[in-house]
Amino acid sequence: MPPLPSELAYVPFISVQNMMGLVHHIGIENVLTDLAADIEADFKRWELFDKTPRVASHSDVGAIELMPTSDGDMYGFKYVNGHPKNTHEGLQTVTAFGLLAGVNSGYPILLSEMTLLTALRTAATSAMAARHLAPKGARTMAMIGNGAQSEFQCLAFQAICGIDTVRLYDIDPSATARCATNLKRRGLNAVQCTSSQDAILGAEIITTCTADKQYATILTDNMVGSGVHINAIGGDCPGKTELHSDILLRSEIFVEYPPQTRIEGEIQQLEGDYPVTELWQVISGKAKGRTDAKQITLFDSVGFAIEDFSALRYVLRAIQGTSFFDNLDMVADPDDPRDLFGMFERANVNSPTT
Amino acid sequence: MPPLPSELAYVPFISVQNMMGLVHHIGIENVLTDLAADIEADFKRWELFDKTPRVASHSDVGAIELMPTSDGDMYGFKYVNGHPKNTHEGLQTVTAFGLLAGVNSGYPILLSEMTLLTALRTAATSAMAARHLAPKGARTMAMIGNGAQSEFQCLAFQAICGIDTVRLYDIDPSATARCATNLKRRGLNAVQCTSSQDAILGAEIITTCTADKQYATILTDNMVGSGVHINAIGGDCPGKTELHSDILLRSEIFVEYPPQTRIEGEIQQLEGDYPVTELWQVISGKAKGRTDAKQITLFDSVGFAIEDFSALRYVLRAIQGTSFFDNLDMVADPDDPRDLFGMFERANVNSPTT
Repeated sequence: MPPLPSELAYVPFISVQNMMGLVHHIGIENVLTDLAADIEADFKRWELFDKTPRVASHSDVGAIELMPTSDGDMYGFKYVNGHPKNTHEGLQTVTAFGLLAGVNSGYPILLSEMTLLTALRTAATSAMAARHLAPKGARTMAMIGNGAQSEFQCLAFQAICGIDTVRLYDIDPSATARCATNLKRRGLNAVQCTSSQDAILGAEIITTCTADKQYATILTDNMVGSGVHINAIGGDCPGKTELHSDILLRSEIFVEYPPQTRIEGEIQQLEGDYPVTELWQVISGKAKGRTDAKQITLFDSVGFAIEDFSALRYVLRAIQGTSFFDNLDMVADPDDPRDLFGMFERANVNSPTT
Repeated sequence: MPPLPSELAYVPFISVQNMMGLVHHIGIENVLTDLAADIEADFKRWELFDKTPRVASHSDVGAIELMPTSDGDMYGFKYVNGHPKNTHEGLQTVTAFGLLAGVNSGYPILLSEMTLLTALRTAATSAMAARHLAPKGARTMAMIGNGAQSEFQCLAFQAICGIDTVRLYDIDPSATARCATNLKRRGLNAVQCTSSQDAILGAEIITTCTADKQYATILTDNMVGSGVHINAIGGDCPGKTELHSDILLRSEIFVEYPPQTRIEGEIQQLEGDYPVTELWQVISGKAKGRTDAKQITLFDSVGFAIEDFSALRYVLRAIQGTSFFDNLDMVADPDDPRDLFGMFERANVNSPTT
């Protein structure tokens, strides 16, 4: 037998299976609420984070992105892909995983699946933003695009904003049916609609979350009345938008990180200096959110690294005292750190460990 | 019991323990030789890779970096830290892991430890470069800096360039003693020297691989005679160099990727437009390597993403038919890709899998 890896060499890993178990163990409403609180707290200390637009590798069929950030104490990054055509091949549009490391040593301290966690953090961020921007007392949300993210969005708005009715529309009616069935079980009044126009009837909040990698127009200007809050999730890479530019021009626009959103968000349709407000400034009281009941507010959300960082730190805390993780032998840790080769030599057994 | 993850959800993971087993199984000389051949082949198709300087997060005590690249078919990245002070705390200066994914789907296809693999690929790259640049018939190498990388460097030069004698020096004599003991077992004539000056006596190749994060001067101009090849490994981040600038001015300088090396390499000491030759051009016959026996050639190596990409692809091939990997449940893979929430709901059991 080769010597076993030392304790330092182990990195807790949260598999998809364990992430699902952990979220059920805590309760998905609690997870969404806690995540929203953690993300809000990190938005309040926005200025101290290392920020950079994500590093994307684009191909004809999708993008693979790395999203790093650091608060000076911990470093985190997420790997995430976006491949709209995957669905037709029986694969997920988005898969993701992420890592936390200590800034002081550079050693990894957590590796986690983030396909599920991204859906949760995106939903929590959307609902957190809506708490600051949506009209008071909103009870009905239109949910346009009923793919993998849709149930998580609706549950977050239920848990965090008090939404009780969701009006669902997707170009694929079977997706709407599936979403409605899943949400009714969770106590939401889920109405299946036959068009975007139908879906937004009476909705104070409109969430758009469609996946085609192209300039689409899910909402046109004459569909959107005054006073609503639009939570635009699906326009999240260059060449991929959901809203007609006329809606943008009538809205007060809130974004995560302008250098990234101007490349990837709905506002890629506007001039590079078009005025937008950073959400963290609203949350810290440095800028105004909704000022008027008739205003259209638009959260042009593309997802930012700090949200993933908050989510990974939440998971690191949440697994303490549970068994929802495996220990991964990821980091070579020789007794004498200069003797990596000696560690290698002492492991000379011609049999694998599995 | 929750339903088991599907086959698509599994990503082969090579732990440190399995990487050591795999390298012993193949033989370290064979691994170094094969890696050098693979890296050389990828340098020949350099132009088709997506290239970007690595994305670094710097702190007072070190750096954490992400190094992505893609050849259009596969995407790869490495996470790597560099914390010189770690050694004093019993930790590795450098730890790393990496991932391969398919460009077409964005799904991860390999996760691997890369602390050991980085040492192997760095050594293979150095020796491969020296085959193109060092004086013919070189048998003696000076190895200045006898840390974790040093044995791997010496073994690669033995296997790939025919070096039979290494002259070792480190400011810590115990490091030199350890390195000499390890290398003698591998059939190298390892001479323990008491200064850099002593180490380079009679050496046709000089490898510098020291770790302090500062401008250091391991070699001064009057120490370096004509005709040698310098393999400078340790100057690899802003503010960290090893050679006096006068040596650079007397040398023909070869680099991996100028936009990165000008920030991180020895040439950060020179003007931004100082002429350097890209190694891939020498390898593909588009530029000249050594043209003269009296020339000083300098490989100002900082490590580039393509070398890690080659190494990860090598590992993916090498594990086929072996058991030197574990299957990691990293990617959520619902039967219906739009029904991520349904997969989550069906996993509702309040017990972890471990």
